[in-house]
Amino acid sequence: MIQYGGDYNPEQWPEEVWAQDARLMREAGVTMVTVGVFSWAKLQPRPTRWDFGWLDRLMDLMAEHSIAVDLATATASPPAWLVRASPEVLPVTADGVRLEFGSRQHYCPSSDTYQRAAARLVRKLAARYANHPALAMWHIHNEYGDHITECFCEASAAHFRRWLRKRYADIAALNHAWGTSFWSQHYGSFHEIEPPRTAPGPVNPTQVLDWRRFCSYALLRLHRHEREVLRELTPDIPATTNFMSMMESLDYWEWARHEDVVSDDAYPDPADPRAHLNAALNYDLMRSLKGGKPWLLLEQAPSAVSWRTVNTPKPPGLQRLWSLQALARGADGIMYFQWRQSRAGAEKFHSAMLPHRGTDARGWRETVRFGAELGRLAEVAGTWISAQVALVLDWESWWALEGTDHPSERMRWRELLRPWYEALHARGITVDFVPPYGDLSAYRLVLAPNLYLLRSEHAERIAAYVRDGGRLVCGPFSGVVDGHDHLHDGGAPGPLREVLGVVVDEFWPIPDGDRVGVGPDAEATWWSEWLVTEGAQTLATYTSGVLTGLPAVTRHSYGRGSARYVGCHLGAGIGPVLDGALTEAEVLPVLDGPVPDGVEAVRRGPYLFLLNHGDRETDCPCVPGHDLLTGARTGRVARLGPRGALVVHPLKSLREDR
Amino acid sequence: MIQYGGDYNPEQWPEEVWAQDARLMREAGVTMVTVGVFSWAKLQPRPTRWDFGWLDRLMDLMAEHSIAVDLATATASPPAWLVRASPEVLPVTADGVRLEFGSRQHYCPSSDTYQRAAARLVRKLAARYANHPALAMWHIHNEYGDHITECFCEASAAHFRRWLRKRYADIAALNHAWGTSFWSQHYGSFHEIEPPRTAPGPVNPTQVLDWRRFCSYALLRLHRHEREVLRELTPDIPATTNFMSMMESLDYWEWARHEDVVSDDAYPDPADPRAHLNAALNYDLMRSLKGGKPWLLLEQAPSAVSWRTVNTPKPPGLQRLWSLQALARGADGIMYFQWRQSRAGAEKFHSAMLPHRGTDARGWRETVRFGAELGRLAEVAGTWISAQVALVLDWESWWALEGTDHPSERMRWRELLRPWYEALHARGITVDFVPPYGDLSAYRLVLAPNLYLLRSEHAERIAAYVRDGGRLVCGPFSGVVDGHDHLHDGGAPGPLREVLGVVVDEFWPIPDGDRVGVGPDAEATWWSEWLVTEGAQTLATYTSGVLTGLPAVTRHSYGRGSARYVGCHLGAGIGPVLDGALTEAEVLPVLDGPVPDGVEAVRRGPYLFLLNHGDRETDCPCVPGHDLLTGARTGRVARLGPRGALVVHPLKSLREDR
Amino acid sequence: MIQYGGDYNPEQWPEEVWAQDARLMREAGVTMVTVGVFSWAKLQPRPTRWDFGWLDRLMDLMAEHSIAVDLATATASPPAWLVRASPEVLPVTADGVRLEFGSRQHYCPSSDTYQRAAARLVRKLAARYANHPALAMWHIHNEYGDHITECFCEASAAHFRRWLRKRYADIAALNHAWGTSFWSQHYGSFHEIEPPRTAPGPVNPTQVLDWRRFCSYALLRLHRHEREVLRELTPDIPATTNFMSMMESLDYWEWARHEDVVSDDAYPDPADPRAHLNAALNYDLMRSLKGGKPWLLLEQAPSAVSWRTVNTPKPPGLQRLWSLQALARGADGIMYFQWRQSRAGAEKFHSAMLPHRGTDARGWRETVRFGAELGRLAEVAGTWISAQVALVLDWESWWALEGTDHPSERMRWRELLRPWYEALHARGITVDFVPPYGDLSAYRLVLAPNLYLLRSEHAERIAAYVRDGGRLVCGPFSGVVDGHDHLHDGGAPGPLREVLGVVVDEFWPIPDGDRVGVGPDAEATWWSEWLVTEGAQTLATYTSGVLTGLPAVTRHSYGRGSARYVGCHLGAGIGPVLDGALTEAEVLPVLDGPVPDGVEAVRRGPYLFLLNHGDRETDCPCVPGHDLLTGARTGRVARLGPRGALVVHPLKSLREDR
Repeated sequence: MIQYGGDYNPEQWPEEVWAQDARLMREAGVTMVTVGVFSWAKLQPRPTRWDFGWLDRLMDLMAEHSIAVDLATATASPPAWLVRASPEVLPVTADGVRLEFGSRQHYCPSSDTYQRAAARLVRKLAARYANHPALAMWHIHNEYGDHITECFCEASAAHFRRWLRKRYADIAALNHAWGTSFWSQHYGSFHEIEPPRTAPGPVNPTQVLDWRRFCSYALLRLHRHEREVLRELTPDIPATTNFMSMMESLDYWEWARHEDVVSDDAYPDPADPRAHLNAALNYDLMRSLKGGKPWLLLEQAPSAVSWRTVNTPKPPGLQRLWSLQALARGADGIMYFQWRQSRAGAEKFHSAMLPHRGTDARGWRETVRFGAELGRLAEVAGTWISAQVALVLDWESWWALEGTDHPSERMRWRELLRPWYEALHARGITVDFVPPYGDLSAYRLVLAPNLYLLRSEHAERIAAYVRDGGRLVCGPFSGVVDGHDHLHDGGAPGPLREVLGVVVDEFWPIPDGDRVGVGPDAEATWWSEWLVTEGAQTLATYTSGVLTGLPAVTRHSYGRGSARYVGCHLGAGIGPVLDGALTEAEVLPVLDGPVPDGVEAVRRGPYLFLLNHGDRETDCPCVPGHDLLTGARTGRVARLGPRGALVVHPLKSLREDR
Repeated sequence: MIQYGGDYNPEQWPEEVWAQDARLMREAGVTMVTVGVFSWAKLQPRPTRWDFGWLDRLMDLMAEHSIAVDLATATASPPAWLVRASPEVLPVTADGVRLEFGSRQHYCPSSDTYQRAAARLVRKLAARYANHPALAMWHIHNEYGDHITECFCEASAAHFRRWLRKRYADIAALNHAWGTSFWSQHYGSFHEIEPPRTAPGPVNPTQVLDWRRFCSYALLRLHRHEREVLRELTPDIPATTNFMSMMESLDYWEWARHEDVVSDDAYPDPADPRAHLNAALNYDLMRSLKGGKPWLLLEQAPSAVSWRTVNTPKPPGLQRLWSLQALARGADGIMYFQWRQSRAGAEKFHSAMLPHRGTDARGWRETVRFGAELGRLAEVAGTWISAQVALVLDWESWWALEGTDHPSERMRWRELLRPWYEALHARGITVDFVPPYGDLSAYRLVLAPNLYLLRSEHAERIAAYVRDGGRLVCGPFSGVVDGHDHLHDGGAPGPLREVLGVVVDEFWPIPDGDRVGVGPDAEATWWSEWLVTEGAQTLATYTSGVLTGLPAVTRHSYGRGSARYVGCHLGAGIGPVLDGALTEAEVLPVLDGPVPDGVEAVRRGPYLFLLNHGDRETDCPCVPGHDLLTGARTGRVARLGPRGALVVHPLKSLREDR
Repeated sequence: MIQYGGDYNPEQWPEEVWAQDARLMREAGVTMVTVGVFSWAKLQPRPTRWDFGWLDRLMDLMAEHSIAVDLATATASPPAWLVRASPEVLPVTADGVRLEFGSRQHYCPSSDTYQRAAARLVRKLAARYANHPALAMWHIHNEYGDHITECFCEASAAHFRRWLRKRYADIAALNHAWGTSFWSQHYGSFHEIEPPRTAPGPVNPTQVLDWRRFCSYALLRLHRHEREVLRELTPDIPATTNFMSMMESLDYWEWARHEDVVSDDAYPDPADPRAHLNAALNYDLMRSLKGGKPWLLLEQAPSAVSWRTVNTPKPPGLQRLWSLQALARGADGIMYFQWRQSRAGAEKFHSAMLPHRGTDARGWRETVRFGAELGRLAEVAGTWISAQVALVLDWESWWALEGTDHPSERMRWRELLRPWYEALHARGITVDFVPPYGDLSAYRLVLAPNLYLLRSEHAERIAAYVRDGGRLVCGPFSGVVDGHDHLHDGGAPGPLREVLGVVVDEFWPIPDGDRVGVGPDAEATWWSEWLVTEGAQTLATYTSGVLTGLPAVTRHSYGRGSARYVGCHLGAGIGPVLDGALTEAEVLPVLDGPVPDGVEAVRRGPYLFLLNHGDRETDCPCVPGHDLLTGARTGRVARLGPRGALVVHPLKSLREDR
């Protein structure tokens, strides 16, 4: 079964509305709702007063209607009484401003007071509902890292120091790691260290890197505390926390280890005609976080959100198309924020499954229609996706890459990754993400659009993969620093130098607005490098600018495999480079023929998903079988309407079919 | 008599200059000066020392020269000694920064210390000059809301809580109004509430709305304290405070109730070729604030100001033209900031009636020339303007409209209002502004460019107006929320749904840069709506985009009147829509023929003002009579030079003339 | 000998690397290194522990290799232990944020604690190395005014008050100077004064001006304290501090009086094709600061820096060309930041003489090649440059010019100066900078692109210069205010009115994007003035806009000289105006013929430098002699390759040659 539903905030409505809600949920085919995300103040209106009565009634109501509850631990926004009694619960900015109550997520990640109060609430909730028939899953906290990714208060500083002490053991090790002989930054003891608050100029980059590591850790620590209480009291109930797609501040590889199921909140912008590409990327990441295990799309907007400058609604059919996209990429549940549109508060203009206008609204009709449709796709649930290509993603490299005082601030991870991913997407090639310490052996091709920070032990894993016959394509500004953000000896690509057969003489960033020719017909922006080959073969050279004639793209045979290096940012021009590697690695696309422009083609288990993101009718290569959505037969070519979709169950297994 | 003069700051000059000033004022035809706006430190140089001697001499000098004094209460900038003795007088930002002395308007609106010290000063001044022959008017404080519209200190927080307690009586009512069941924001008591300081994310919108209400109230409370002292001691002297045109932070409807005469500070930008349109709008508002009563233009710049990035001077004749414009729209006084240009300080480059260069300057010649000209317009003073069209303006709706987390941040009150006003201006149709609780019965047509927040009782007044035969045109995103910023049941336009005969299925904001066709030949930007008619007739539909074919403009017969709804932002395209309504409402323009481009035509009392804002000679429909400025006869057509003006006293009453 | 070398930070490297460094320095021709700039924490790791052993060894090593040491006093970044023990050492922003440790230059300029600790360190260093054979020069502190130009803490406030008390003696004088009768800003005593922290609106401009004076003074006071210790202990060792080119916050005229030799840190942007023009300007200033005495280019980047958004490297040959440019304009040393590229820290991507890649790198080859080339230019060292044109530069006028609430914020000193300087540069005319109180008698022509603030005594010096036969060209918005930022009587140009024979009726700033014609073929942007001649002859009038027909450029015979006034900003159009003045003043360019586009021509002593900044081969007028770089003969025409250069020793003295 594919879960269908959304966030449900019954505390915003009189109880007489609940019965109507339950009835309408059934009408819409809702199977699960997320309850209580911001209910702390309702559950514990005073330090010593608990009020579970309303939640008891709600849970019973859901059980009566056979609607499962993803019950939130309600800890993301502590109540006013806690904040007023213990103002140190509130987070502090790098400038020393203590942020005020009145919004949400107003907590210091290192606050013991907050953590104790949260644990108490979780324990109460878990004890009370452990055996409630409606309880299907725990929703821990909410969107960790949203609004608050860091706090600079004294408690956070002390926590940071404890974390550093554990990491480095003695101050000499920290001084070495942080390179404090630079700018007279030597520390005599851990007591002298503070968080990277606003300073006269750029702060020590390793300090900042460690701070980012610490901040991801500090939030994960909170998460694990809640998780442990739940595991103790409800060992059989799965738990999740809603991730926020490819988010910079949290190392989701580390986080996912503590999830029973990965879930995601995804809000692609309907005003962006390329939004589905980024969505696909994020869904592939969610699937990859637990090694391919199906995940849940826990939040998306039925139509417009309310937090952009201009919030474009979803035209008819887009909600359905984008939901099928998540399904195609491994989701086992399609859920929304939120069930019933709020009348008050900061999200009252955020669309909902049941809009302000009620059951007369177009939105409601789409909710009901898609609920019915999902029912026909039940067999897709639980199936897995198999990819032949892996993309290396490393959060600590991302953090280090986007530090200050680099050759160019234009080198941002998501910008570097995007064209690589999109080139594969356009070719109908599905990818997994892997951490730099992940198992690469299953993949025919490994792509590393950027690995600015690369530990030698990780480089060695990559080298071994190539030596053993793997194919690697590595992007620019990689292998630059080690885990302390220190330059590798001899310059980039550091520990990949032997694998790639090149060395960088000098980074050569390209000024904004400039373009440099890369033969035969590509162009580089943002970045190039004065590259020297050491055994590698030159695939393309610069055709304009200072570097004219120097190698831009290279290929090096190494062991039984090969490694390409791309020394510049090619944007969409990365496509032909990848084609060479794909051919060499014998990677097979999903479809036999070329994927039409705007169409997304993915295989999940035996099923072939064809999704037309364009607004024109399109013919697309297909396979004989039948479409789960309509029951209609399919052949070698399928016609897709604007925003149209097919979920094809092929006659033969797809793998055989190839 | 039309008052002529300006701010006079004698404390900036040695007393020997005063005599020269008085003589030159007479030469220029000055009748009134505003004195003492920033004299607190001079009047009370130490806590216990008062120095009125210099002001006595100045007042006597003015009396001797028959120049009336608009005497300031001098409270807008407390002296250094007060600030140093009581630092809590200084205001605090949302980030907690206490602003420093050294500029002006450095006071916390909720500071009792400040208020007591100010009251003491006002009492001293009023007692001393109550019977001085020069005293003609009180100028209370200065530009309330300039620089400081709010303060986030502890005293302000306590004051806010007291105000909330009075507003809501019990905390449950506040929790309901603020919708605190959202995001766990429930308050257990008023003690837990703080101002909307900087928070992790968007703050509760009703809290913010109440804060804006409170801030307007807190400043008005200061104003009323001063007003009461003056009323007690000088009951016969009129008092004013200088407004700042259509200012967002103060509800001038509420404020104007406490003014004997409305006065305005207006600084249109000479570099903006459309500045006169906005000026006209502001002057119409000033006139409307006390139901049409003549008002005073208390400050304008003779030429350039000094606070813009680039301060463009007024070319020859522009000062005169723009002054006549204020007169045309109801002003009984034309005054300037300031009389003599300062030699030092932050406004030394602000132009003055008597410039740095002295009596050789072009500016001085214009000052003298216009003073003489004004003398010839004395009979205009005291006459009223009659309008057939009303524009609804509601400050609390404005505040709520411009809250955060809305469908589109592009929906700003002034931007929405502007094209409606300009369309009327171009047609020679004068409008009054009215509050949503105002009397509409006198108007043939009522326009509501936006009423995002609309209380049901106000909607009922509008409905009754239409039922009784009135004509209404209502703009988009109206009737959305109630007085608590809660969505009206069933969606927009909420309580106007029956009147307008439409309901909004979904707001459909238009991304920046996009344009959507509206038949036959208009275009919408920023905003559209998925509109459903419920009895209304469709006047125009969308001709491109997702909403193609859906209604964009509608008309609904309701009772004995009719109501048009415009579901999108049409910009200048609103003109044809208004034409239909004007025709139906039988609204008569000022002139018989079309108003030439760039010409402004207004009737005030019996007088017809024709103002050519263009820099070309233009022929314009006119009426037989004579021009007060030159004494020349006028006929059915008048020739206006560049920046030329006529003030025509018609042979026949204008109403008859029609 | 021309010094060659760079910053050397041995503390970042294990001692075994030092020997290699010394050997490579010799290989590269390095003659001097700057050591210890950020070594405080290394030299004094704890309050009571000193560690000079490593520096002893380093100094010995340098001595052994005959490499001179420019030894830093190491005071620019106090160690963590000092900051933690005395947090008041950290600077505070105008908003009250105390900046954190972790970057550099984290000190309050008015902190006694900091100053005492710094003095103690300097005393130790000076005592220890007074007689060390490697010690050649003291490098005091580092880049005063970088990051921290001001501090708003209580100690700074107290210091500011002491400084004001000394400046004004009594509070009445301060009240007069600051014009505190404006906006009720009167002070009863010095105790009531605070720094210009963030205030509700614009702060008193004279207060801000005095603050800027004070801030330059406060840093200079720190500098002088160190200087005095060194003078006491090492009277024969010259001292310098590295200036930062034409820097707004420090009055380098005042500072240079305390330097034995002026040194500069210069970082022109290789991505800016006009960067060399600004560099030339800065080098001329450096030379002028001590009346023409040769100076040191103490820091420049061998290739890219690391602190821009995008850091463009220097293509082959550019480092050499730009170094020769500094030499041409009076430098006796060419040094770099830094010797060996860092592996860690915020400057690890800043290029170095010895790059990450080591001796294989292109950068290293350029380092070695240029070192050898410099050896051939030894005879240039110590020669002086003679200029016939002076440019007046006054820091307090600059500060006042860029105050707030001016007619136009576009009037920025460097923007006004630039086109004047560039016009001279293009004509091969070398200029000196002079302070407004400098000796003008030696110059044929004096240019004052802007003198917004002009003290009467300085104006009188300029007037006397013209009376005695000098030629003056004065730019717009000059002679506006006196030393207190009070308007001069009668308006601008105030005390220059008689000299220039004009008076400004009204400033007439030009809105952004607009252009006003100035006959016959120039255009003004940003600024114009309604000018009235009083004896001056009109050279050009406005040909469009409101001022059409009014004088834009004038010439006035005064005494035995003449004075031109340019009432608008002409940009590159200033060229023809200057041509007239140059001809009248009989100023001779460096070359007989016109200087080809992109070529820089300068004479230093007997030597003619020809530098081709373009990337094409160019023929250029030259003189018979020989090129020091190659030994080749030269004639009347020289061919310069792309980025090519000649240093010609003429057969005859150049002066004779003319």
